[in-house]
Amino acid sequence: MNDEPTSEILNATYRALCKHGYAELTLQCIAAESEMSKAAIHYYYESKNELFVAFLDFLYDRYTTQIDSTARDSPREHLRSLLEVLLTTDEDTPGTEFRTAMLEVKAQAPYDDEIQDRLVEFGDYLFERIREIIAAGIDAGEFDESVAPSRIAEVFTTIIVGSHTRQVAVDYSTDRLGETITSYIETHLLISTAVEGTQ
Amino acid sequence: MNDEPTSEILNATYRALCKHGYAELTLQCIAAESEMSKAAIHYYYESKNELFVAFLDFLYDRYTTQIDSTARDSPREHLRSLLEVLLTTDEDTPGTEFRTAMLEVKAQAPYDDEIQDRLVEFGDYLFERIREIIAAGIDAGEFDESVAPSRIAEVFTTIIVGSHTRQVAVDYSTDRLGETITSYIETHLLISTAVEGTQ
Repeated sequence: MNDEPTSEILNATYRALCKHGYAELTLQCIAAESEMSKAAIHYYYESKNELFVAFLDFLYDRYTTQIDSTARDSPREHLRSLLEVLLTTDEDTPGTEFRTAMLEVKAQAPYDDEIQDRLVEFGDYLFERIREIIAAGIDAGEFDESVAPSRIAEVFTTIIVGSHTRQVAVDYSTDRLGETITSYIETHLLISTAVEGTQ
Repeated sequence: MNDEPTSEILNATYRALCKHGYAELTLQCIAAESEMSKAAIHYYYESKNELFVAFLDFLYDRYTTQIDSTARDSPREHLRSLLEVLLTTDEDTPGTEFRTAMLEVKAQAPYDDEIQDRLVEFGDYLFERIREIIAAGIDAGEFDESVAPSRIAEVFTTIIVGSHTRQVAVDYSTDRLGETITSYIETHLLISTAVEGTQ
């Protein structure tokens, strides 16, 4: 029961952020999305900034839960499932409105250390999971041992961030990209085809 | 002489954008960066929006000139030179302030068709040049013929966009990414090593 009001506020913040964007986000419009008054919200969070940092922590929990839910016994299947979740847009994944707002937040990061520190955590979590999956795949004999886990993780993390930016900026569909990455994994990472040299 | 005042205004817009960001960009702060009054700027551009669309066209010319300047006789060297320019930050390339402002602009794109149309042109230009370089490299016998030019171009375009977003959002250095991409090209695209299957 203890954290229910803050949970209510943070869920309302999500809805308000999707509707109004980050620049226009106010305690007033968050209150309009919740059962609580602006004054009640103010009781829990003294400023928009304080609320927003708590909101990023709340998002981080959702993000890590979403990423962890892609775990599979086979590293190959795990990687495929992770990329599918992060490169697809459907009912269960964040939509363009949310990604648009988050792009505003990213542009704000150089001016706000607390925001930037949180965004670094999101990126690090994704990078580490991909790195672990590749390393586990090498150990399991699924991925070619000459593949460098941290380098693949860095490229995949950057591709995922780039696809989300392009989705917002140029209304880009990630479907074909997902296919290309899957094909890259099949051709260049998996040990069964890596020795054929057929590219 | 005819376009000198607009050139003065557009260069001032660049400086004002880097200093204030897109949300805070006004004709007033553009005037402060130029030799012209706000009224004089207003004579050439009726609104911030009209000026900004002209500014994106001006940036597009600079962008295509920068990309075209990477041309080399060998497609392999051309690709390396292009990626070096787009994945490096130094005196000659746009700095973080400019990329931060452009990230704001990208987040604005879903709400403004004129801006989005221009951003699509930037992405299409980059994609087409990379696709042409890969295709030329296959024709020249430098790149493996099983490589699909449009798929590689899509992935590289997305990596470049992602690296610029991460540079702003998480203060990411593109140095190691550049090395990884170069190594990928050496190992997977070039025909001399592609047949070895050594990854």
